[in-house]
Amino acid sequence: MKRVLLTGASGFIGRHAGAVLERLGFEVIAVSHRAVDGSAGTSVACDLMDPGQVDRVIKEVKPSHLLHLAWYTEHRLFWGSPLNLDWVAASLHLARAFASAGGKRMVCAGTCAEYDWANPATGAWAGPMDERETATRPRTLYGVCKNSLREMLEAFSREAGISFAWGRIFFLYGPGEHPDRFIPSVVRPLIRGERATVRAGGFVRDTLHAQDVAGAFAQLLDTQVAGSVNIASGQAISLGDMARKASAIIGREDLLDVGDVRATAENPASVLAKVDRLRGEVGWQSSIGLEEGLRQVVQWHRENMGKIASE
Amino acid sequence: MKRVLLTGASGFIGRHAGAVLERLGFEVIAVSHRAVDGSAGTSVACDLMDPGQVDRVIKEVKPSHLLHLAWYTEHRLFWGSPLNLDWVAASLHLARAFASAGGKRMVCAGTCAEYDWANPATGAWAGPMDERETATRPRTLYGVCKNSLREMLEAFSREAGISFAWGRIFFLYGPGEHPDRFIPSVVRPLIRGERATVRAGGFVRDTLHAQDVAGAFAQLLDTQVAGSVNIASGQAISLGDMARKASAIIGREDLLDVGDVRATAENPASVLAKVDRLRGEVGWQSSIGLEEGLRQVVQWHRENMGKIASE
Repeated sequence: MKRVLLTGASGFIGRHAGAVLERLGFEVIAVSHRAVDGSAGTSVACDLMDPGQVDRVIKEVKPSHLLHLAWYTEHRLFWGSPLNLDWVAASLHLARAFASAGGKRMVCAGTCAEYDWANPATGAWAGPMDERETATRPRTLYGVCKNSLREMLEAFSREAGISFAWGRIFFLYGPGEHPDRFIPSVVRPLIRGERATVRAGGFVRDTLHAQDVAGAFAQLLDTQVAGSVNIASGQAISLGDMARKASAIIGREDLLDVGDVRATAENPASVLAKVDRLRGEVGWQSSIGLEEGLRQVVQWHRENMGKIASE
Repeated sequence: MKRVLLTGASGFIGRHAGAVLERLGFEVIAVSHRAVDGSAGTSVACDLMDPGQVDRVIKEVKPSHLLHLAWYTEHRLFWGSPLNLDWVAASLHLARAFASAGGKRMVCAGTCAEYDWANPATGAWAGPMDERETATRPRTLYGVCKNSLREMLEAFSREAGISFAWGRIFFLYGPGEHPDRFIPSVVRPLIRGERATVRAGGFVRDTLHAQDVAGAFAQLLDTQVAGSVNIASGQAISLGDMARKASAIIGREDLLDVGDVRATAENPASVLAKVDRLRGEVGWQSSIGLEEGLRQVVQWHRENMGKIASE
């Protein structure tokens, strides 16, 4: 029996993960800060910041698998927040408890912000990032904490004899995204009939639908592939082109302004991923094309415009 | 007023730190798992694994400085123990609590095991390790955890606006050392009139008296020097020569066998330190020569032979 403890089950990625895990034959115990109605599997409320609660849940559930997606993700603030330290501590405790209770296979969420993004002198294209070839050089507290957690969990897993992989998430979009993030910041004004501006129209980013990200994590968990694996589309598309596609769906290309700014080390012209491991070793394929995904997103924001604005 | 919270105050290094800190004008609040009689400063019992206790002590003490030496150090076991994860978590919490309570200057204990020790193919001399030039490549869970903690605390300190240095400890000796460690493993049989063997007689290690290490940490804390600083003698001496000096002090050179083994990546021929930062920027000088230090150690083991054997 494959029984997975899923953390961050109510999050932007996690909310899609339970259903995919069930399709893969997992019994799903979905943990989040509050129990969630209607989610796949069994929903359990657990504060991951409370080691005692974590110990109790793990002892009761005795999961064979752990998919750990939970983290502090408050838009913009997460980059430099001291809460990143708390999430490292909580994740270390969770991993120890999982291994102690006989857990066998663990996958945790990492980030493209672990990589050295670009030549700091030029901000120039560094090529798609490769799990084995590209150096790690995180420039933010968030990136440093994720990178450090990965290194510690790799060393710990070797000692504890558990199988461990680390999925590095690139850029995301999908229904329910924070209104200040890139796609909503374009889509929402256009829906309202207001102008929308893309400042860095020429920058290319590997961008994947949250449901595809969840699917890739679930499939990675169901293998024995070890180490870092990019969770990304492998496609290069510019922010300008993404915005143009969204504006065409809304039918308001006339309201879209696409500019261009100079690349910096923090905001490089290109953040792309090699996905040979995800495609070849994990065998994953995207199930939602960009066009279809953007249609979903536009639809979602049309339906939830007032709701989010009043939050 | 300089008020320092000293952790690991009853440890092998920490027990010497309080007195030096007081000489440097610090008010010392010495924290250890149990209050210690006769130590310098005010002794406070605090379980660093309990965040609530740590918060209470920090709020009460409001330290301007933090010297964090505490860690899990059980001989041999510490290299691979999962307790390393708990100490990372506890250290992150301590640093956050310190910064939140207005702390200004923090120094923590790192290790030479963060460095890439040697060419793994040859095990050959890699030269003295330099804080800026030598790559980090820890090979043990202990080394990985220390290295990761350093990277996270550096990033956190930048965000929190506190001054931070990281003292990398090399090899230690001194009174009260565990009987299975190198110097006691030579000294104790010789005192008993039994043969002692040094297997890797040709290996050179930077070795410093625990009291000197404590003095270097205290002095580092009293500067604004930032980043990693090797805490070491800068001297090269072979294990064989150290053992010969000790045997001469005991007067039993006849009982000493010095062998030689092949170097490996885990046990390289040379682990030496550049100490330009410690000497030049911190202005530290050793106060205990090897000869004098070994005499102290021999004396200590003569007096405590039975006591430790019965433990």
